[in-house]
Amino acid sequence: MEALLAVELALARAEARVGLIPESAAQAIERAVQVAEPDADALGREAAATGSPVVPLVRYLRQLVGESAAASVHRGATSQDILDTATMIVVRNSLAVIVNDMMAAADAAARLARTHRDTPVAGRTLLQQALPTTFGLKAAVWMTGLDEAVAGLKRVRDERLAVQLGGAAGTLAAFGSHGPRLVAALADELGLRQPVLPWHTQRNRIGELASALGVAAGAAAKPARDIVLLAQTEVGEVHEGDPARGRSSTLPHKRNPVAAVSALAAAEQAPGLVATLLGAMAHEHERAAGAWHAEWPPLRQLLLAVGSAVSWLADSLAHLEVDVEAMARNLERGHGLILAERIAGALERTMGRDGADAFVSDVAREAADAGQPFDDLLRARVAELPEPPTLDLDELLDHRGYLGSATELVDRALAAHDALRTST
Amino acid sequence: MEALLAVELALARAEARVGLIPESAAQAIERAVQVAEPDADALGREAAATGSPVVPLVRYLRQLVGESAAASVHRGATSQDILDTATMIVVRNSLAVIVNDMMAAADAAARLARTHRDTPVAGRTLLQQALPTTFGLKAAVWMTGLDEAVAGLKRVRDERLAVQLGGAAGTLAAFGSHGPRLVAALADELGLRQPVLPWHTQRNRIGELASALGVAAGAAAKPARDIVLLAQTEVGEVHEGDPARGRSSTLPHKRNPVAAVSALAAAEQAPGLVATLLGAMAHEHERAAGAWHAEWPPLRQLLLAVGSAVSWLADSLAHLEVDVEAMARNLERGHGLILAERIAGALERTMGRDGADAFVSDVAREAADAGQPFDDLLRARVAELPEPPTLDLDELLDHRGYLGSATELVDRALAAHDALRTST
Amino acid sequence: MEALLAVELALARAEARVGLIPESAAQAIERAVQVAEPDADALGREAAATGSPVVPLVRYLRQLVGESAAASVHRGATSQDILDTATMIVVRNSLAVIVNDMMAAADAAARLARTHRDTPVAGRTLLQQALPTTFGLKAAVWMTGLDEAVAGLKRVRDERLAVQLGGAAGTLAAFGSHGPRLVAALADELGLRQPVLPWHTQRNRIGELASALGVAAGAAAKPARDIVLLAQTEVGEVHEGDPARGRSSTLPHKRNPVAAVSALAAAEQAPGLVATLLGAMAHEHERAAGAWHAEWPPLRQLLLAVGSAVSWLADSLAHLEVDVEAMARNLERGHGLILAERIAGALERTMGRDGADAFVSDVAREAADAGQPFDDLLRARVAELPEPPTLDLDELLDHRGYLGSATELVDRALAAHDALRTST
Amino acid sequence: MEALLAVELALARAEARVGLIPESAAQAIERAVQVAEPDADALGREAAATGSPVVPLVRYLRQLVGESAAASVHRGATSQDILDTATMIVVRNSLAVIVNDMMAAADAAARLARTHRDTPVAGRTLLQQALPTTFGLKAAVWMTGLDEAVAGLKRVRDERLAVQLGGAAGTLAAFGSHGPRLVAALADELGLRQPVLPWHTQRNRIGELASALGVAAGAAAKPARDIVLLAQTEVGEVHEGDPARGRSSTLPHKRNPVAAVSALAAAEQAPGLVATLLGAMAHEHERAAGAWHAEWPPLRQLLLAVGSAVSWLADSLAHLEVDVEAMARNLERGHGLILAERIAGALERTMGRDGADAFVSDVAREAADAGQPFDDLLRARVAELPEPPTLDLDELLDHRGYLGSATELVDRALAAHDALRTST
Repeated sequence: MEALLAVELALARAEARVGLIPESAAQAIERAVQVAEPDADALGREAAATGSPVVPLVRYLRQLVGESAAASVHRGATSQDILDTATMIVVRNSLAVIVNDMMAAADAAARLARTHRDTPVAGRTLLQQALPTTFGLKAAVWMTGLDEAVAGLKRVRDERLAVQLGGAAGTLAAFGSHGPRLVAALADELGLRQPVLPWHTQRNRIGELASALGVAAGAAAKPARDIVLLAQTEVGEVHEGDPARGRSSTLPHKRNPVAAVSALAAAEQAPGLVATLLGAMAHEHERAAGAWHAEWPPLRQLLLAVGSAVSWLADSLAHLEVDVEAMARNLERGHGLILAERIAGALERTMGRDGADAFVSDVAREAADAGQPFDDLLRARVAELPEPPTLDLDELLDHRGYLGSATELVDRALAAHDALRTST
Repeated sequence: MEALLAVELALARAEARVGLIPESAAQAIERAVQVAEPDADALGREAAATGSPVVPLVRYLRQLVGESAAASVHRGATSQDILDTATMIVVRNSLAVIVNDMMAAADAAARLARTHRDTPVAGRTLLQQALPTTFGLKAAVWMTGLDEAVAGLKRVRDERLAVQLGGAAGTLAAFGSHGPRLVAALADELGLRQPVLPWHTQRNRIGELASALGVAAGAAAKPARDIVLLAQTEVGEVHEGDPARGRSSTLPHKRNPVAAVSALAAAEQAPGLVATLLGAMAHEHERAAGAWHAEWPPLRQLLLAVGSAVSWLADSLAHLEVDVEAMARNLERGHGLILAERIAGALERTMGRDGADAFVSDVAREAADAGQPFDDLLRARVAELPEPPTLDLDELLDHRGYLGSATELVDRALAAHDALRTST
Repeated sequence: MEALLAVELALARAEARVGLIPESAAQAIERAVQVAEPDADALGREAAATGSPVVPLVRYLRQLVGESAAASVHRGATSQDILDTATMIVVRNSLAVIVNDMMAAADAAARLARTHRDTPVAGRTLLQQALPTTFGLKAAVWMTGLDEAVAGLKRVRDERLAVQLGGAAGTLAAFGSHGPRLVAALADELGLRQPVLPWHTQRNRIGELASALGVAAGAAAKPARDIVLLAQTEVGEVHEGDPARGRSSTLPHKRNPVAAVSALAAAEQAPGLVATLLGAMAHEHERAAGAWHAEWPPLRQLLLAVGSAVSWLADSLAHLEVDVEAMARNLERGHGLILAERIAGALERTMGRDGADAFVSDVAREAADAGQPFDDLLRARVAELPEPPTLDLDELLDHRGYLGSATELVDRALAAHDALRTST
Repeated sequence: MEALLAVELALARAEARVGLIPESAAQAIERAVQVAEPDADALGREAAATGSPVVPLVRYLRQLVGESAAASVHRGATSQDILDTATMIVVRNSLAVIVNDMMAAADAAARLARTHRDTPVAGRTLLQQALPTTFGLKAAVWMTGLDEAVAGLKRVRDERLAVQLGGAAGTLAAFGSHGPRLVAALADELGLRQPVLPWHTQRNRIGELASALGVAAGAAAKPARDIVLLAQTEVGEVHEGDPARGRSSTLPHKRNPVAAVSALAAAEQAPGLVATLLGAMAHEHERAAGAWHAEWPPLRQLLLAVGSAVSWLADSLAHLEVDVEAMARNLERGHGLILAERIAGALERTMGRDGADAFVSDVAREAADAGQPFDDLLRARVAELPEPPTLDLDELLDHRGYLGSATELVDRALAAHDALRTST
């Protein structure tokens, strides 16, 4: 409602600037807007009769502004001009919050990456322990996804939020010869872009906005899902540290990762809403018969869902407690199994690749069947080989030595993140 | 399959460059790839056992390459490295076609905009005649939507198609200290971007690609829907001109706008697929338990659907026959009703805005009820006014004089389009 | 909120019935619920801390009910028990309205089918005039789709709305040995079904509800789209008759089909929401980490969207004005072209099928090229045939004689509709 | 293609039965269909020209059948009649496989429920251990979801698969007075339902089919997700037992739950496809301008995705190895913490509810902070109470005594499952 009034006011000012209405009328409208207190419920009811809340709002404003300036209110504009432009303002405000929260989440991930740059943790593929990695690298992956999503949102915010002004059919006919100059003036008033053409039925902007929000939801869901998985009772590598939250209504002992769960719940709502908005892009002729109205609720819900997801994620990351010992304990569970790739690689020189793989697999299976530690059995079986290779099994079985380029990758990602922050 | 082989080859070359495998092994792999004729069906069956076609392909390739170089095939890589990178190659190839067709469609729309820069046509809102506009402006709106969608696709193509290489858990551990240099070398081999981090579980790239394709589908659907509506028997303002198409199996007289209909049908499939891909972005830990595999069919289908939509649209626009007379006839149907806004605007000075609106509405209703032409009745009712205003009704009722800034807008849009084409 | 309180009350009564809490406690809770005025905003804020509004509501209720009965409030239940069951009550209430409106819409379509049982109208395929049909048959198709969708909603309403009660992990452990009897008592209190198992993480019911709503939206969109198309200025075969609606903010002459457009706009929002709810069905273990919370907004939005679509459609159909003359006029536009299939069929005996098709196609094309009426040219060309067939072209060119089984189909559909109404 | 030919043949037979074409022509068509070997690629190319593969297929069939019977091929039908009816046949065949696999999956879950009727396992909410439950109850929940989804698929299969026959505009005009009888005869030939009205533009059937498939995907995803989570290295409570599967390409020790992961991956593709099909329900007038063609790929993909999900799930469940010891071990991890609700309940009588909750919470926190077992500390702290309650803590801390009605629920669910199997 505020945004609708702001657009009507900006339109009046712009029209006064190009000479379409008297300066005094613009001033009268400004005063009216300042004191306007439209009854949202009544407008809602009236909106049903015309398909838009602008019609009753304009009627209200014309009454408020008095007879002399009444005709200068909403002059030459159509309802969609006002609504689309107001939507851009609402989007700009929402994006400010979302981008902010997303940057906070990325910064929190960056802190985790820096702090745990060298903290070993089990790398898991298909939820099976696969190879060691570092918690720093995990956090750096989260951070990079968030940073990239922020870039997408900023691009939309900076390049794609434009005023819509076309009049009833997009020709600016009701503005006489002032049309294009008026569009420029309105864009200037509101700090929005001036489009090449009115976009009342060309909805790329809405599609791009929805897409960027959808990608942001996906980027937020990734760390949220990882956190929920890491916080499992049997894994226990992270906890959400906010003591005011996560208590169960029935279970006094539980510490639920409420923020991450809430982030996931919000993020899951985004893709369906993005689909609705993309599916509503084909507006008929000079005003859509349905597709335009179909944009409003999903766009609002999408901003809410992504805003909620990002805000919860920032909260979760900011309070995340990392249990380095649990990470170490979990890494040790397999007694070196997680280094099977490395062992096989070391044996490859003497056994060939397939031989080495088969040897390690056999030892792994035997250990599992017999309930024996893998590392002990491995030492025994290696010693029994006809020509025992000269391997430093102690070193090979130390997961700290098989973290690959994890640290280098973290540093590179942090450098990229820091560069982003100093550049903006 | 070709792309998979290309990646395995590029990987071998890159590994030889950084010294991970002997140059001779890379050459052996190159020869093997050149003669490789993997049995796609057999690989498909084996793929079910491991969840990826790469495992059997690597086995096949190792056999083909001989014992000495076998261990150098796929060295240190994981299946997802190969599949993700191959997907990027397939995407690049597909985008080349899609961007090309989309530019052809935009160019065809530009030709229509230029040719019909001043051709009046009824502007329709909610599928009701509202105000005159020009067919040139309609076509310019189509063109601008297509151009903007092309920009989005190009951005993804140029900035977001990157090699994926991380090894089993994304640490590049199996490549020893060569990891980052190897990634750079692989990117160089394939002409793809080098990512800051491995993106095996950070799927922004896929989400952005899907989104850009979804927006492209929406941008293609807009002109397709307009064409289908304009080609209706009762409207008849355009026809698809390809004589080889659009015949009905049962109705010898029909000329169906088959290309536009097919474009719509293809475009409608995109949003659901985009949603699936956005929903699959939250990959668990270091390899997703489902979400990664869930990307393949929808991504392929999305490329097909958008490719098909764009190709049909380019065809429809290239062959579009514009019936200028039908446009004029339809504009005349309402005997000036379509200029009601203009008439009311002219009467506003003497009657006030509400008075003018009510007067024109009353005349319109009376004309409809009595089955009389609006313009005749309007002249009569204006003449009967107590103080008849001095209006040039003939001029006011000429829709050519109420096209607003349509022509200026077309010129501006064409200039922007031309600038795009010369810059790329 | 009301539904949450109703469930807490029903739970207390049921627990008193099975002897879990004293009868006096149930009575105290009943008195408390009657006077309860929870502060929705405050609850919302507290809800964020636990992930559910039930926790603060129970706390409030316990305070209200006094110390002696406090422990009997919410005894043994978990938040999800209350929320899921309350959702079922809200759904039941919403479905009552939706089913009612949908039946009203179907009845309105039935009236149109009956009234216009024999009114010829152009049958249109791919928006091209194809063959004559009747407006009665069009309306009967709308009606049947609505009736079938009602059947789906009723099935969910009657068979799938069940209480959820399982306690914290679905074992009913906190209810001692009373669990299953308590579930039965609660179902009895609320008039909901008793499920075989607690369904806290088995969400078929939500999926089926969402699906039935999605199908209802599609069934509502079909007539809405047809109405919007029939109401086009150039077609003009129907108008929405509510005089209070459809005025444009800028165009005094327009009569927009606002109700049908609004129905379309609402219906278009359904599929994406259904997808979200289907995608959220895979709840983890004994309570989902996100998917459960992800159900709430889309389910509410889906009920709103479908409710809105159906209500607008009922409105549109109830006020639909049918312009029989416009239908006749449009049928005549092609001067018999719409009977091309029939003419070709009649010529088939003498010319063979391909010959007849080709002959009619040629005449149609020649007529179009020369701007001549098809029927005149057809008579001439038939007369010129070497062996002119004995055809009654006047009769063949009368579209009233080529309506096939339209009337019989309408009667059959109306009989089925009437049978439904008397059976329920 | 086979289905298309089957429909053309059935149409010919039905037309011969009602006397529309000679019996000899039907026989000629039967012979032709038996030897027909249409070139799918060529038909595909020609299909592009008319928007349907039926047109070239009919042409091919007419050539094959010879001049005398050519006109009897496809007589009076329109392409959509053939395609929609053929689709119903394909759907029937696909549903046979899907229902079968889904029943196999439910039976496998039933076996697990029976075998592990009393096997304690940690109940987990938000992926945190909450209360003990039984693995039998988990499996029973899976089973019930699958059974309910089967019921939905069977309902569609038995009640909603109908022939489509309407001719070019749905009036059956080209069949003279034989229309309705012909529809009945065609339904009889093919064993499909006879619809009240032609459903060429009333797509409830497609929507209901899509929905039932979407619900089936969700019901399959639930057990698949649980299995993936239970198979995690750190949980280890189940393993997929098929030795031929789940090996990693790089990690010799891993046992990936490939079947469950594949089921999840397939199921995740369903919701977006369902949305596309629901969104395509609003077909324009007497044949849709896009929405009909838009159904084909998503419907095929949906059948494939759900078929794949269900088949993989049946495989996973059939080979599932349950590690009862791991379940017991995980239950013991918290040293009784998982029974906190029970302990608090027992203390409630002496401490009041809030007091008991607070006491247990405090002990839980102290135990966590001090790294002490919860049960030991609990005993100590209870003993220190001013008036120690007389509690049998040994019994209270035995999770076997706090399984609530789990066994009874399993038995009830199995009885319902068995009743289903004997009734069908």
